[in-house]
Amino acid sequence: MVRFGIVGTNTISEWFAGACRATDGRAEAVAVCSRDVGRARAFADKVGATDAFADLATMAESVDAVYIASPNGLHRDQAVLAAEAGRHVLVEKAMGASLSEVQSIFAAAERTGVVAMEAMRNVHTPAHQLIRDTLPRLGTLRHARFEKLQYSSRYDRFRAGEVMNAFDPTLGNSALADIGVYCLQPALDLFGAPRQTTGASLWLDNGFEAGGSLLLDYGTLVADLAYSKVASGLGPSVINGEDASLVLDDPGELSRIVLHERGGAETVLLDGPQVSPADTMVFEVLDFVDQVDAGLTDPRWRDLSLLARQVMDNQLDRGAS
Amino acid sequence: MVRFGIVGTNTISEWFAGACRATDGRAEAVAVCSRDVGRARAFADKVGATDAFADLATMAESVDAVYIASPNGLHRDQAVLAAEAGRHVLVEKAMGASLSEVQSIFAAAERTGVVAMEAMRNVHTPAHQLIRDTLPRLGTLRHARFEKLQYSSRYDRFRAGEVMNAFDPTLGNSALADIGVYCLQPALDLFGAPRQTTGASLWLDNGFEAGGSLLLDYGTLVADLAYSKVASGLGPSVINGEDASLVLDDPGELSRIVLHERGGAETVLLDGPQVSPADTMVFEVLDFVDQVDAGLTDPRWRDLSLLARQVMDNQLDRGAS
Repeated sequence: MVRFGIVGTNTISEWFAGACRATDGRAEAVAVCSRDVGRARAFADKVGATDAFADLATMAESVDAVYIASPNGLHRDQAVLAAEAGRHVLVEKAMGASLSEVQSIFAAAERTGVVAMEAMRNVHTPAHQLIRDTLPRLGTLRHARFEKLQYSSRYDRFRAGEVMNAFDPTLGNSALADIGVYCLQPALDLFGAPRQTTGASLWLDNGFEAGGSLLLDYGTLVADLAYSKVASGLGPSVINGEDASLVLDDPGELSRIVLHERGGAETVLLDGPQVSPADTMVFEVLDFVDQVDAGLTDPRWRDLSLLARQVMDNQLDRGAS
Repeated sequence: MVRFGIVGTNTISEWFAGACRATDGRAEAVAVCSRDVGRARAFADKVGATDAFADLATMAESVDAVYIASPNGLHRDQAVLAAEAGRHVLVEKAMGASLSEVQSIFAAAERTGVVAMEAMRNVHTPAHQLIRDTLPRLGTLRHARFEKLQYSSRYDRFRAGEVMNAFDPTLGNSALADIGVYCLQPALDLFGAPRQTTGASLWLDNGFEAGGSLLLDYGTLVADLAYSKVASGLGPSVINGEDASLVLDDPGELSRIVLHERGGAETVLLDGPQVSPADTMVFEVLDFVDQVDAGLTDPRWRDLSLLARQVMDNQLDRGAS
């Protein structure tokens, strides 16, 4: 049983508490921390946690692990603090605002012998594992397309002149780190480290990276990742091999996977109800608890987070206007 | 009336002769040239042309214009020869194997006052014009995806060990010049010259460029072009604006165009029967004849061919393995 203290009181923290309840007792949300202790108390009551704190260091003393879902710009300092207090840390994506921030979190965890993991829920799901297991049926992989194009609910207000956090580049936000990563991490986990990457972003007048295409170049395979917060997409995500293609409905919340063989045969491999983030989050919690039980950070997830952040940094540095 | 002599006796030349017949008398295929005059004669009889030649220079004396559909590696020399003989030249795509080859064709035509045009049929169609006319309804353009992913009918033989012309890089062939160009030319015609391009190709063991993704970077818009000769694609092509998206069935032979507004409304703008290359070719012939009648190469098509070849050269030079 891992007893979690939650940092942050937004929707995602509520989903997380629900995910803990769905682990058959392997994880529990026991405490909440917020600068405003009244808000922490109210949120704790809402999600069934016992304790409320205004101070992370104090909360850390009373829990096994800290789940960090504060604004991205705070992740690194809070995660390092919790790790140095000897607590395991599960950090919402984006784990850090740069590769060096992510490296410093893993380094702190390694120094004190605790587990650190990025809460990147879509690579921990059985649906993602089903894709991995199916890849050999595609033959030599040639072209993959992962797409997450959304017109953000907040973009209308940006267009009306209001710069909200979600479109503020000074907070370390970007469409890539916010939603492009739902394409990037599955691609890197499925195909490995590319020999090189390239890409192009589109920029708003205030310098916010609002979308783009990122290419992972494997020499014999190109993975083409498209993401946006300012336009809706209508294409599926597809992994094309020489012998078959795999069509995915949404790399973020997969609910449908269909295998199309070159001869024309179609096999529906997954056709579940639409899934919510709360549904898929339980798998990341379980993978985290497994590591806590083993007393070791799993290099698979650590290296994936590090590689993804490096690729994101490269893309954001490339052609910034 | 433009009286054409045809160089080349493949399927595409047969389509071209049919396209001439469909111009209501504005163009006619009157002669055929092939190294093997017997083959030229047989093909002339098949398509209703009068004369057969074994020599391009001789054929050029008896026609108004030459349509060149020989192997790509011969295009430049044949086009320059015909232009220098004072004949208008319509050259199948890829017009030349490099930017300098394409430049030398246009330069020869300019010197002798004849018209030169690349036979890139899909940008001359009413369906393409319909896309152009509809773009303002999409709002600010943000992300475009043009896709042409095909498992070539010849690739099974390549996999069995036979290197056919279609997969022979020494002939100046590539998936990009062969089919990627069906994505590239419409994108460049619709969106203009990008501020920069990047991309990644995949390569076969013999050095053949067999597919890739090519990104046109407009700063506020990314056009993402995906093409392959070794894997089939299942995604549509989509132009995403802030207010609406336009979904296209096939950038090469468009038969369906649907406007999806952000609120959910869908408008079918085109839903024709499946079109064949022979159907769409007639529009390029008419655009060519218009230029012959005006006595001037249209800079729109010339600049598009030059820009496309430059972008293709950059992509093929990039990361060749």
